[in-house]
Order: sequence, then C-alpha cells, then structure tokens
Amino acid sequence: MIPLSTILLQMLQEKIKRPTLLLDKNKCLNNIELMLNKAKENNIQLRPHFKTHQSHTIGRWFKNYGIHKITVSSVRMAEYFAADNWEDITIAFPHNLHESEQVAQLAQQILLNIVVENLESLQMLCPLLKSKIHIFIKVDTGYNRTGLSIEKKETIDHLLDYIDSNEHLVFEGFLIHAGHTYQSTSQQSIQKIHQESLQKIQSFRAIYSGRYPQLTISYGDTPSCSVVNNFDGIDEIRPGNFVFYDLSQWRISSCSLDQIAVAMACPVVAKHPDRNEAIIYGGGVHFSKDRSIHHTGQIYFGLVAKSTEKGWSTKAEGAYVKSLSQEHGIIQGSSEWLSTVHIGDILYILPIHSCMTADLMKEYLTTEGVWIRDMLRLT
Amino acid sequence: MIPLSTILLQMLQEKIKRPTLLLDKNKCLNNIELMLNKAKENNIQLRPHFKTHQSHTIGRWFKNYGIHKITVSSVRMAEYFAADNWEDITIAFPHNLHESEQVAQLAQQILLNIVVENLESLQMLCPLLKSKIHIFIKVDTGYNRTGLSIEKKETIDHLLDYIDSNEHLVFEGFLIHAGHTYQSTSQQSIQKIHQESLQKIQSFRAIYSGRYPQLTISYGDTPSCSVVNNFDGIDEIRPGNFVFYDLSQWRISSCSLDQIAVAMACPVVAKHPDRNEAIIYGGGVHFSKDRSIHHTGQIYFGLVAKSTEKGWSTKAEGAYVKSLSQEHGIIQGSSEWLSTVHIGDILYILPIHSCMTADLMKEYLTTEGVWIRDMLRLT
Repeated sequence: MIPLSTILLQMLQEKIKRPTLLLDKNKCLNNIELMLNKAKENNIQLRPHFKTHQSHTIGRWFKNYGIHKITVSSVRMAEYFAADNWEDITIAFPHNLHESEQVAQLAQQILLNIVVENLESLQMLCPLLKSKIHIFIKVDTGYNRTGLSIEKKETIDHLLDYIDSNEHLVFEGFLIHAGHTYQSTSQQSIQKIHQESLQKIQSFRAIYSGRYPQLTISYGDTPSCSVVNNFDGIDEIRPGNFVFYDLSQWRISSCSLDQIAVAMACPVVAKHPDRNEAIIYGGGVHFSKDRSIHHTGQIYFGLVAKSTEKGWSTKAEGAYVKSLSQEHGIIQGSSEWLSTVHIGDILYILPIHSCMTADLMKEYLTTEGVWIRDMLRLT
Repeated sequence: MIPLSTILLQMLQEKIKRPTLLLDKNKCLNNIELMLNKAKENNIQLRPHFKTHQSHTIGRWFKNYGIHKITVSSVRMAEYFAADNWEDITIAFPHNLHESEQVAQLAQQILLNIVVENLESLQMLCPLLKSKIHIFIKVDTGYNRTGLSIEKKETIDHLLDYIDSNEHLVFEGFLIHAGHTYQSTSQQSIQKIHQESLQKIQSFRAIYSGRYPQLTISYGDTPSCSVVNNFDGIDEIRPGNFVFYDLSQWRISSCSLDQIAVAMACPVVAKHPDRNEAIIYGGGVHFSKDRSIHHTGQIYFGLVAKSTEKGWSTKAEGAYVKSLSQEHGIIQGSSEWLSTVHIGDILYILPIHSCMTADLMKEYLTTEGVWIRDMLRLT
C-alpha cells in the first residue's frame, strides 16, 4: 500500500508543471509570530515591509495577528494594499517627485507616511496636497545608500522648517534602514552595526526630542530585527524579508535553514552524469540572478532541499545551483545524489533572495496545494 | 525660443513617471536588418529567438522583413506567439515532460519543433500526440549546459531509432547553442569557439547526412552570429539578444555601444555630493541583478548615457550603476557629472542584460513616445 505521505506529495507535485514558488504557510506564520512577539516584548511597533510577499492574501495573514500598519517600497505597492483596506502605510523609498499626484491622491484616502531627504521632492508635492501627509526624514546611520547623517544637521533643519511651515505636512520622525547588516557574515557583526546605529539614533533623539516630543524612530532591516534584542530608542521596526527568509539571511545567520518558508519547485529536464549535473527548468527569469558565495569561494544561486510530504527537509542534499541562464539552471551534486534524480523529477530549491524570486514568480503554491495569485503586477 | 529638440525630449520625458524601459526603434530595426542581411549573404535561415523581446508588436517588426520562423524558450512563449499567427516555432529548451499535453495540443495548430536529449521526455509525449511534431536533438559543442556531444553517439542513435519508429515524430536535425561565447572578452575568442563548434558540427553532418540527407543544423547565440562570417555546415541561426543588444554583448565585443537599442529611464530621487553619488528609482526588480566587470575590476550594473531628443548619446558619461537593491540604484559619477544632475532628472542607463531587463519591465516606451505593452505574462 502506498503511504498517505507519498500520496499527499504526489497530489502537490501534480500541480507543478513548470517552475513554481512553493510556500510553507506554517513556517511563514511562525516567522510572523516570532517577529511580532519580539516587537511586543520590546514594546515597539511592528510595521512589516510588504515588498517581500506583495500579496493581498499574505497581507491578510498579518492582519489576523492584529497588524494594521505596514511598509511598502513604491507608490503602486501602496495603492495596491490600500485597495485591500490597509489604512496606515509608509512608502519607505525617497519620494519620487514624478509620482506626486498619485501620492497626493492616496493621502486623501489613507494615513500615508512618505520619506524625504531633500526639499525638491516636497516642493513639487505640496501644491498638490488636499489633505495631511506624514513625513519621515530618511537618516543614514552608515549604510551609505540614502538618507542624511547627523553631519547634515543644517539640511535636516531646513527640511523641518519647511515641513512645519506647511499646513498639510506632519513631521512624523526619522526613518533608518541599516542595510549594511546584509554585508555581515555573523550575528556579532550584525550586533556591532546595530549598536553603532543605535548610538546615532540616540543622538538624533537627543537633538530633536525637545522640538518634537512625539517623534517616531522607525528602524528597518531583517538581519538586525532578527538578531538583536536591544531596541532602545526605537519606536517601530520595518523588517520585510523575515516573512519568508532565504539563503542570504541564512548565510549572515539571521535565520535558520528551517525558517526559510519558500522554495522553488523545478522540473528536471536533463541529466549529465559525466559531470554530476542535472538541468532544471528554472532560470534567471524565475530565481533572479542573486547569488551567494560558499565559504569555499564557490558562487551559487540556490541549494537543493529534499521534498517531503509536508514541504521540504533542510537536511543537506549537497547539491546546489551552479549557474542560471534565462530559463535553465544547472544543479551540481554528487554522483550518489544524481543517481537518485530522474528526468521529470521536481527538485525543491531554496532561493538566495526570496524578495526577488517572489517578485518574478508573481504567484505561490502553498505546500497544502493552494494557489495564491493575488500579487501586485506593475503593468 | 526653446529648440524643437528640447520640446521633443520634454514630451517624451513627461511620460516617464517611474523606471521605464526605453526602446530606440530605429536601432532595433537596424539590428534586425543587419542580421537578416548576414543570413541572406550566407544563404542560411534566420530563425530569431523571441525570448529577448517577448512582444507581439516587436515580433511583427520581424514579420515585416519577411521572417516567418521563430525560436522561443518556453511552451507558454510558443503559445503566446502562436496566438499572433506565428506558424513555425522552435521551442529551444529541452522538452519538459510535464508540459507534454500543451506541446501535443500546440503541435496540432502549428509547425512545432521541440528539442530533446533524452528518451524519457519523448516517451511521455508520444502517446499524447495527434499530429506530427518536429524534433531537434540538442548537441553540445563545448558549452556544457545541455545537449549530447558526439561521444554520446550511442544515446543519439537510440533517440533517432525511437524517433524514426514513431509515426508522429519527424527528425529535423541537430540544434546547438554555443553559449560559452558569452565568456569571451574579444572577437578573437568568439571566433575560436565558433571554429571549434563548426568542426564538431561538421563531424555530426558527416556521420548523419547519409541517413538524413535533409537534416537541419540549427546554431544559436548572438555573439557568434554577430561576429563570425563563416557558417559552413550551418543551415539556420537563432540569435535573440541582437534585437536590442546590451552591455554584456558590448563587453565581449559583439556589438558597438551605438547598437544598444534599449535604455532604462530612471528618476533621480536623491543626491549625495560628498560621495559623488545619485540615487535613482530603479533597482533589481527593474534591471535584474545581472552584472558586468570593468577592466579595473569594478562590478557594475549599468552605464549612464546622456539623453538626447532622439534617444541617447553613447558618448561616455563616466557614471555607472554601482549597486542595486530592490527598488534603489546607486549611480557613481564624477563631481562634474553630479553637478549637472538634479532631483527629478530622468537618467538613461544602458542595461547589462536586455533579455532580463525586458522580462522584468513587461513594457517598452519607444523614443518616439509610443508604449508597447503586449508582452508575454506568465500569470
């Protein structure tokens, strides 16, 4: 008799005709719960970043936990979630003045927070505003992507004066993304970056809390929020990737392999035993070209996990995605591993960067066999 | 008085609110014409690969040149172009047995060529066939991704026997993609790879032309087809990327900068003069994370070109995309360059890999101001 577990696995895999993004809902809910509990214990607001999943359905899973404030990375993403009744949204991207009309319109519908770091973007927006809009000033604590460091106090003060002089602009606080944690390779180095950020944040608070006693310090990045336990001086956190995690997070030790909630399921289309390689249907247009580096120096684009009836086992299979072209992936494994692989098998592969993979795939199949297809589409 | 050229440029840029893929139709048509002329001069068939543009509209530009046979990289892409009356399509990807039903159905509607390299995929397909389907055997001439080398003659002969014994299967010939030309850095090394491929192809022809006097040798890859002039023993070519070209092709000298027919137009959202950086709205979800390496060792994700009323000038601006996150791009330039850049400016950036960028963007804006939005969407 065929065991039930095998039948369940077959039922799931029969839905997989081509590269498919599998989602383990339980792992995903556990990730949400863990982060929410951490926020509660530290008495800070969790305002999760929805750029990772970009889905109404998955957004509602957060709502079921009582989460009502969210972060997005574009105006269209804000519009998409506003359409599903999210009424308190931060667009955590420097305001693009060409989208001022859309922003002004959205600000009439919901409580909208935007991020600025220069006057020009506000000067274009203000004449269009018919309602209040909340402003975060982007602060740079060392990542050196966007934002103003405390050395730019004069620019910050100019911005604050402009905001305070405009009836529609409400200064909300300072927003930080310590994205340089992504260059870490250990919890210690994440901790170190976080401590440095905290010090800089505290100097902001020291300078500005007199003028703005209610100011919010909003802090981002999944590595910090996953690893640290000291949020002194922080009012809210905006991690995003933690909803799924991925191999990038695992490599910098901000999650365990078991916490990764998505895997690509890809059919095997060819085998080359003379070089211990299997070829999958699954390439750069599915995974993205994000890469990671093994401690041996080997570049890889994903790791093979063993499929189980409930999802996948994270015990090492020892096989990895060696390269990706547009539709092909080359899996390098041992000869023992390859001898267990057949043409037509569905391989499960943990992705390097789940945000990019989800953005490309535009749909999920849960390990319970349910399709999730309500994702933001840009055109 | 404002010059007409400035007005035209403004009219185009007013359509650009967010990251937008610009297409210079003239450059694109020149690229098509050049490749078609080369095919004609060499008396070979041009069967262009449509995975680069994935658009009905751009497909019709090829049809206007009398091109009626095309290549695609997936079953769904074949269905998409069949729906626009393309009646002779090669799916240049090893047949994925899970899509056998779709393939069998499509083979009833059009002349369909598929690619195989193992029996398993054919064994699943054959019982479903109700019409003839044409089979290419994938041959590896050294790229080591997929395909059978001449050393696998026994496997090839098994496949041929199976094909010949099935009433629905028509052996069409051997299909080669010399993708290792992409690892070249000069025309000389592309030529060398091509010569080696030609020798191997000729040994295939020598062995099998007795049994199959009409066999087709189909040869791929834009670098070879752009650079070489000797196609002895080749019946058709399947380049794809040449329709747009990109910085990857330019780096390996298979095109000039002037031939690159697409550029990303991205709004500037922040400036950081202390590190000579501008921040654009335009990240990995727009460009893809494909990268290139400058001869200095610097990794980059795109090069800034100067916008002109007719498109862009390829005179060096000296500014490049230093890094990409999900929605942000960091542009590194000189202080002189940065002093000419303003918040809200639209920067034009030549992409590293136009196939991946087009796949992400899913729409084009021609430099004449026309939107092209009919692109294959997977969900």
